[in-house]
Amino acid sequence: MGQSDIRFGLIGAGRIGKIHAETLARKVKGVTLVAIASPRGESARSLASSLGVKKVSASVEEIFADPTIDAVAICSPSSLHSQHIIAAARAGKQIFCEKPISYDLVEVDRCLEAVKTAGVILQIGFNRRFDPNLARLKKIIDNDEVGALEMLSIISRDPEPPPIKFIPTSGGMLFDMSIHDFDMAHFLFGEVEEVHTYGGVLVDAEIGKLGDIDTALTSLRFRSGALGTIQNSRRAAYGYDQRVEVFGSKGMAASENVLEDNVNLSLENGSLASKPLYFFLERYAKSFELEIAAFIQCLRNGEPSPVSGSEARQSVLIAMAAERSMREGRLVRLSEIG
Amino acid sequence: MGQSDIRFGLIGAGRIGKIHAETLARKVKGVTLVAIASPRGESARSLASSLGVKKVSASVEEIFADPTIDAVAICSPSSLHSQHIIAAARAGKQIFCEKPISYDLVEVDRCLEAVKTAGVILQIGFNRRFDPNLARLKKIIDNDEVGALEMLSIISRDPEPPPIKFIPTSGGMLFDMSIHDFDMAHFLFGEVEEVHTYGGVLVDAEIGKLGDIDTALTSLRFRSGALGTIQNSRRAAYGYDQRVEVFGSKGMAASENVLEDNVNLSLENGSLASKPLYFFLERYAKSFELEIAAFIQCLRNGEPSPVSGSEARQSVLIAMAAERSMREGRLVRLSEIG
Amino acid sequence: MGQSDIRFGLIGAGRIGKIHAETLARKVKGVTLVAIASPRGESARSLASSLGVKKVSASVEEIFADPTIDAVAICSPSSLHSQHIIAAARAGKQIFCEKPISYDLVEVDRCLEAVKTAGVILQIGFNRRFDPNLARLKKIIDNDEVGALEMLSIISRDPEPPPIKFIPTSGGMLFDMSIHDFDMAHFLFGEVEEVHTYGGVLVDAEIGKLGDIDTALTSLRFRSGALGTIQNSRRAAYGYDQRVEVFGSKGMAASENVLEDNVNLSLENGSLASKPLYFFLERYAKSFELEIAAFIQCLRNGEPSPVSGSEARQSVLIAMAAERSMREGRLVRLSEIG
Amino acid sequence: MGQSDIRFGLIGAGRIGKIHAETLARKVKGVTLVAIASPRGESARSLASSLGVKKVSASVEEIFADPTIDAVAICSPSSLHSQHIIAAARAGKQIFCEKPISYDLVEVDRCLEAVKTAGVILQIGFNRRFDPNLARLKKIIDNDEVGALEMLSIISRDPEPPPIKFIPTSGGMLFDMSIHDFDMAHFLFGEVEEVHTYGGVLVDAEIGKLGDIDTALTSLRFRSGALGTIQNSRRAAYGYDQRVEVFGSKGMAASENVLEDNVNLSLENGSLASKPLYFFLERYAKSFELEIAAFIQCLRNGEPSPVSGSEARQSVLIAMAAERSMREGRLVRLSEIG
Repeated sequence: MGQSDIRFGLIGAGRIGKIHAETLARKVKGVTLVAIASPRGESARSLASSLGVKKVSASVEEIFADPTIDAVAICSPSSLHSQHIIAAARAGKQIFCEKPISYDLVEVDRCLEAVKTAGVILQIGFNRRFDPNLARLKKIIDNDEVGALEMLSIISRDPEPPPIKFIPTSGGMLFDMSIHDFDMAHFLFGEVEEVHTYGGVLVDAEIGKLGDIDTALTSLRFRSGALGTIQNSRRAAYGYDQRVEVFGSKGMAASENVLEDNVNLSLENGSLASKPLYFFLERYAKSFELEIAAFIQCLRNGEPSPVSGSEARQSVLIAMAAERSMREGRLVRLSEIG
Repeated sequence: MGQSDIRFGLIGAGRIGKIHAETLARKVKGVTLVAIASPRGESARSLASSLGVKKVSASVEEIFADPTIDAVAICSPSSLHSQHIIAAARAGKQIFCEKPISYDLVEVDRCLEAVKTAGVILQIGFNRRFDPNLARLKKIIDNDEVGALEMLSIISRDPEPPPIKFIPTSGGMLFDMSIHDFDMAHFLFGEVEEVHTYGGVLVDAEIGKLGDIDTALTSLRFRSGALGTIQNSRRAAYGYDQRVEVFGSKGMAASENVLEDNVNLSLENGSLASKPLYFFLERYAKSFELEIAAFIQCLRNGEPSPVSGSEARQSVLIAMAAERSMREGRLVRLSEIG
Repeated sequence: MGQSDIRFGLIGAGRIGKIHAETLARKVKGVTLVAIASPRGESARSLASSLGVKKVSASVEEIFADPTIDAVAICSPSSLHSQHIIAAARAGKQIFCEKPISYDLVEVDRCLEAVKTAGVILQIGFNRRFDPNLARLKKIIDNDEVGALEMLSIISRDPEPPPIKFIPTSGGMLFDMSIHDFDMAHFLFGEVEEVHTYGGVLVDAEIGKLGDIDTALTSLRFRSGALGTIQNSRRAAYGYDQRVEVFGSKGMAASENVLEDNVNLSLENGSLASKPLYFFLERYAKSFELEIAAFIQCLRNGEPSPVSGSEARQSVLIAMAAERSMREGRLVRLSEIG
Repeated sequence: MGQSDIRFGLIGAGRIGKIHAETLARKVKGVTLVAIASPRGESARSLASSLGVKKVSASVEEIFADPTIDAVAICSPSSLHSQHIIAAARAGKQIFCEKPISYDLVEVDRCLEAVKTAGVILQIGFNRRFDPNLARLKKIIDNDEVGALEMLSIISRDPEPPPIKFIPTSGGMLFDMSIHDFDMAHFLFGEVEEVHTYGGVLVDAEIGKLGDIDTALTSLRFRSGALGTIQNSRRAAYGYDQRVEVFGSKGMAASENVLEDNVNLSLENGSLASKPLYFFLERYAKSFELEIAAFIQCLRNGEPSPVSGSEARQSVLIAMAAERSMREGRLVRLSEIG
């Protein structure tokens, strides 16, 4: 791809779509956001207008069919991701797609096949890999600063549960929320061989009635022999809790929470530090930007993305094994899944 | 028991024996340490002399037979604990005994039976319950400050492995080291129903050759439905790592490491905080003292100890379930054990 | 002023000019940056081109003469600030000007007079007032969260001295660097009555040869009776050190350093936290943006700026008193100055 | 002095007397506390009885006259220190004396003369020099870890003011409280040449009516050219605030507060760390013990104490200069004092 601007089409104008739209239109260079497709016309038009995007369409196909569009950012509902990936690949578009590809391994593999056949680049939106703190953990590992890896500890808690009506279409907590941590585990410690997952309904009984969980504890064994533990909760009274610790033969690296501010207030009852940044939009604002910048760099260099479809497939595998472990009350090997 | 001094005999003059001797002779009131029994005469005599203890004996039986002795502190090798508990109980002595009672549930139950028959008080040396930080966690829980309990997270790592020759008689890492954390789990979150344990040999292959592990990751499900995770390692390059987090519906309480000092050194590469206190003798110095004070209070009040034999039995059950889980690669319910 | 965009002209295209240009062109709404004036044509053209600014001029007068321009942002060299303020005021432009107005009180007063006569709004670039941490300190004070104010403690150290050739035109450390802290003192604790300043040349003897200092320690007494201390250094080996503590009858609020990341690396020698963000461009990035947003809001509402010329005059007064105190080795009252 | 026990007499059985009695009787080796003299017989007898001290006397002279006593610990009221030092020196006793020697420089010099004539060792109770955190700061300086010293920053605040009736006999805040910080400044940064002190009555107007202050801010210039600042308050709502920062050419070392425990409680409003240890008896418990151990080592080795009378004289000089500075509203050189 040459030095002229890469022309992007955006699929979806929801919460995440808006973030990527802003990044594409204002924050990265060498890119033009030329079109937005969304069935929600009002929202799409308003977004397009505020960012100076000229074309708005209700039809996704129009984007795929537009020969002046080089790349698409797929931010449609999760259940449409795989069909949009396949259509985009067939149209020869470069593809950035929000996670997950699909909750179904067969669908995932169909997407990977389509992408491979088309020879396009696919990147999945595991933005946390680009978070400066977590990216530094990766670098610390790669530089052997903590030595041989022995234990990974992830604590990942949302400030509050999603609206109850979101639960049935969420794919379940393990696929919707924990999957970020499964990807992080894979990103930092490599291939996972086995998992054991405990699920619980401790936050809201309504979630349980819908067949989902709101609390999870996953143990992992990596191919290297290292171990890992992931704690998830749909609610933390003290806010969005996002911590990762990497323990190895030479020491430990810990990514701590990012707080609302750095003011400590010392009063009669002790010294009060501020809460973590409110939620993922605030906590991972920078990583949403950096993942797009990385994708564009891949397009420019014609290189595969570091968050390729086959990478993303691993997190689906772990989530499936975790789900099975939880349902069947036993350790599950990933080789059982696929 | 009246207001005259309680007269103690000490069994064993090793590392832990010395600590309890010092506490009994110098740090708590209303107590006289009157005799020390140890096969290692030199060490016992030197200890007795430095503390003004008049009687030293090579024979444990002599202590049990001495009618002027009210209570004993058993600090003999672990393999002798159960026979010393039974003998002491039969002699009508009040009993403080280092952990563990035994690695064998039958033995444990024989001890509990003997203690019950004799009507004496038995306290096991799970000193960490008395650590001011961990005791405050318990209080926070009891005061409902973090609400309904949902997740317990314990990280417990030694600064370095024990001498390799200690491994064969240690009872194994789960019984020797993790058992403190199992007791802490039981102390803070109540009864454990299930465990899943991963063991690994990641620190020293020699430990593996002896059939033991040096790394463990245990998941627990409590009767209440709460979950827990315990990370253990025989070595942490940055020192003795002892952290406990209690997560509940209202928030989280975290007991952080206690450091060598509170000096931060900010140089060109960042700001360096000091390491944790070296090892358990330093880190839990206060709790060794407070557990004896609590035992004496129980004797004075004629009340059962909060760290009774049946409490201690629970930690053995968890350790046995953890061992079985690790060996068989599956979730184990405590009801399978006994 | 109506709801059409406010049209800005930028004076100066240096380091700070670029920051404000970016803010005006991209980060705040309701504003158009229509012209850039700078004697350094190359730099100005490149900046204008990257931001889509149409007009570039070598002549400041052209900006002032342009009737389509509503407001100017003055980022010229400090020695030109006062003449540019006066010219802008006479041309009826709204004025945002970088600190300082002038190092000369007569000049300052001429500016304030011109602004008053013209009836325009003037805001001086004491951006730190808009830093989220420091703004929260102000709010904590205003909310009476720390009670009656008693002691202010500011530590403000640059990571490294400026190029030595900058020193002669800098106005001196007290006017160039400490003045931010003098403004912060005034902002947080109100009017200053007296100062005592120690100056030292401890970092670089060359700075001393040029008649300047590189280390300063200022004590202040506020009109309220509260006291304050300000520590300044031109160099901190561990990076940009920017801390403020507010102590009062009910407690203390402390704004701590903002670090490069939240990763702690625990190795054999302790636990290493990252350094502070590199320098003011990084540390105060957000406040550069927020001060412009606040200025625009004042223009929209036709209200005087919270960082008005007479506010800025106070910091000059304090700096002059500090300089005199240092030179004469005595306590100086602000009423001696003017 | 040989290897037989050093025999101590204690003068005074008040709060500090009890602490030193306990240290001498129980915590250090090679020492016997043989006598306690106090006009408050009840208190002295009770103390003696609990520690097994045989001799109790109402007469200080009896202690000095007792030829079997090698050393005395003077814990009488401050106003009696100098006469007790002189009497003890004349009796040939080794002398540990609580701070201050006297508030009067003539008295101080009479004491130093008497001690010199008698050839005995005198140590003054500036216990904070032995605090592990502050002692580490000294070591960091001596090891050149922070490079050439540039700025010392001490924050020293009591949790609450002393009883109002104590004020008139306290010697004033600068002599009673700040003097510890003056000694610390001298200990860490060496000789002080000049001081400027602001005093205020911000905590309790009653203190002001008695002619004393409750808030102080002192700036210092050291002979080396380094600068220092000391903040004092008689009251901090959040507890005993004891922090020291040493800033130099290579970096900074900071001794932070020691907290009641290491538990952080994260609730809806943020994360609450515990308060500092209550007051000096808790915060400096260890240093009270270590200063006596150091004194005994000096006696054993026949070496002068590191906290000699002439060292202690420096802190009195600084306090006198600070007082004069505050009263006269000007910078004061120590050479003006004596």
